[in-house]
Amino acid sequence: MNNKLFDMAKLASKNSYSIFSHFKVSAAIELKDGRIFTGVNIENSSYPESMCAERVCLFKAYSEGVRKDDIKSLLIYHPGNDALAYPCGGCRQVMSDLMDHSCVIAVSNDVDYKEFILGDLLPYSFTPENLK
Amino acid sequence: MNNKLFDMAKLASKNSYSIFSHFKVSAAIELKDGRIFTGVNIENSSYPESMCAERVCLFKAYSEGVRKDDIKSLLIYHPGNDALAYPCGGCRQVMSDLMDHSCVIAVSNDVDYKEFILGDLLPYSFTPENLK
Amino acid sequence: MNNKLFDMAKLASKNSYSIFSHFKVSAAIELKDGRIFTGVNIENSSYPESMCAERVCLFKAYSEGVRKDDIKSLLIYHPGNDALAYPCGGCRQVMSDLMDHSCVIAVSNDVDYKEFILGDLLPYSFTPENLK
Amino acid sequence: MNNKLFDMAKLASKNSYSIFSHFKVSAAIELKDGRIFTGVNIENSSYPESMCAERVCLFKAYSEGVRKDDIKSLLIYHPGNDALAYPCGGCRQVMSDLMDHSCVIAVSNDVDYKEFILGDLLPYSFTPENLK
Repeated sequence: MNNKLFDMAKLASKNSYSIFSHFKVSAAIELKDGRIFTGVNIENSSYPESMCAERVCLFKAYSEGVRKDDIKSLLIYHPGNDALAYPCGGCRQVMSDLMDHSCVIAVSNDVDYKEFILGDLLPYSFTPENLK
Repeated sequence: MNNKLFDMAKLASKNSYSIFSHFKVSAAIELKDGRIFTGVNIENSSYPESMCAERVCLFKAYSEGVRKDDIKSLLIYHPGNDALAYPCGGCRQVMSDLMDHSCVIAVSNDVDYKEFILGDLLPYSFTPENLK
Repeated sequence: MNNKLFDMAKLASKNSYSIFSHFKVSAAIELKDGRIFTGVNIENSSYPESMCAERVCLFKAYSEGVRKDDIKSLLIYHPGNDALAYPCGGCRQVMSDLMDHSCVIAVSNDVDYKEFILGDLLPYSFTPENLK
Repeated sequence: MNNKLFDMAKLASKNSYSIFSHFKVSAAIELKDGRIFTGVNIENSSYPESMCAERVCLFKAYSEGVRKDDIKSLLIYHPGNDALAYPCGGCRQVMSDLMDHSCVIAVSNDVDYKEFILGDLLPYSFTPENLK
């Protein structure tokens, strides 16, 4: 486990804007050059216009010029000791397009931690190649 | 393979509203009582407001009162002989909440066909239980 | 006000799948040939993968081959006597692409009713013409 | 017009990840304390999982702890001299929840510029008050 990534995600979680579900989630990605980007879930009164922490995190990085080959891993954090908050399918789709499928996806709370390979979380994926 | 489900999905695919990608997808779900609902992808000039065939299909059924225990299987169809159009992560998330994880998810085109169990397409899923 | 459209929307509202917000919404569109399609909001544990009633209704119609020139009006219904549930921006975007901007959009509950012209609800819209 | 905001948005537009539409959009928000956040559109092979520049920009700011009262204005930029890229309805919904309705929304390209008040772009909005 990358302690700095965990600390950054935990710190970011206080910025979660989850006024409807009160379910705080944050995420952090680490780049190969050591830089870290964080994100939180941001809800909307029109639920479909809400956004998850993992996607906010990746969108931030891409908006700063980061691309697939720059990213090393992504960690998801949900405060407390409830069940781990695994990434939703929508986030896996965004990860699938924006990260290498060999990247590590870590899922954590304050008492538990698990690691996966992105490709294992979205087998048989729909990809940009489908649209060519 | 369920030939009727395939025929219905293939027929529905002509209603695909994919004016930007020109990538036609349709889907059909079969209920335990034999009823079938179909859906197609419907794109929007604001891409995030587009919708996939699988979700349209499930939303239609739920809007008519269908619920999780009523659904038997879902088939995805992409016309032609290109690579199979596997369901995107967003659709798997919607299937995960709205269908039993033991349901069969079939993916087809005019020359190929594969079957999966929903639970295998979205392992370690985020579910309504997380929000309780 | 179109009483049949209202009755159909009210009847459909019992199918609302709003297990997180408990905020029921339904919608109904009337075609020029008299046919009516209904929709409800369908929530997801991953909030961004939820869908609004207005969009479900339009997606259903399009998936059955209905197109822009076939649609006459859309009515939104929220049970009870709370504030009217005006359409969210995401739904207005979908209406903007899929309906004529001169269509009537009606918003109702059990005690109140208002009518708008679609074009007035989304002035200066982003349209498919932008992408040409 | 705020020249610094425009310059930052124009600079950011090169990070647009619009590999399907090739339609580049960027956005920048200015805070009352002078800080600026930028965003770009980031597309996905599953179109509904794409995201607009305006939302990326606001999500970034909120994820860093910015809240409604901190934000002064938002500018949208589309390179070239095509028609102005007005914000889509989904983005107006996110602005509506995350910004004060009196904020200025500016829309620009390399030859044209227009200013609006947020509240005028999404009249009769659906808001968090509806869910209380």
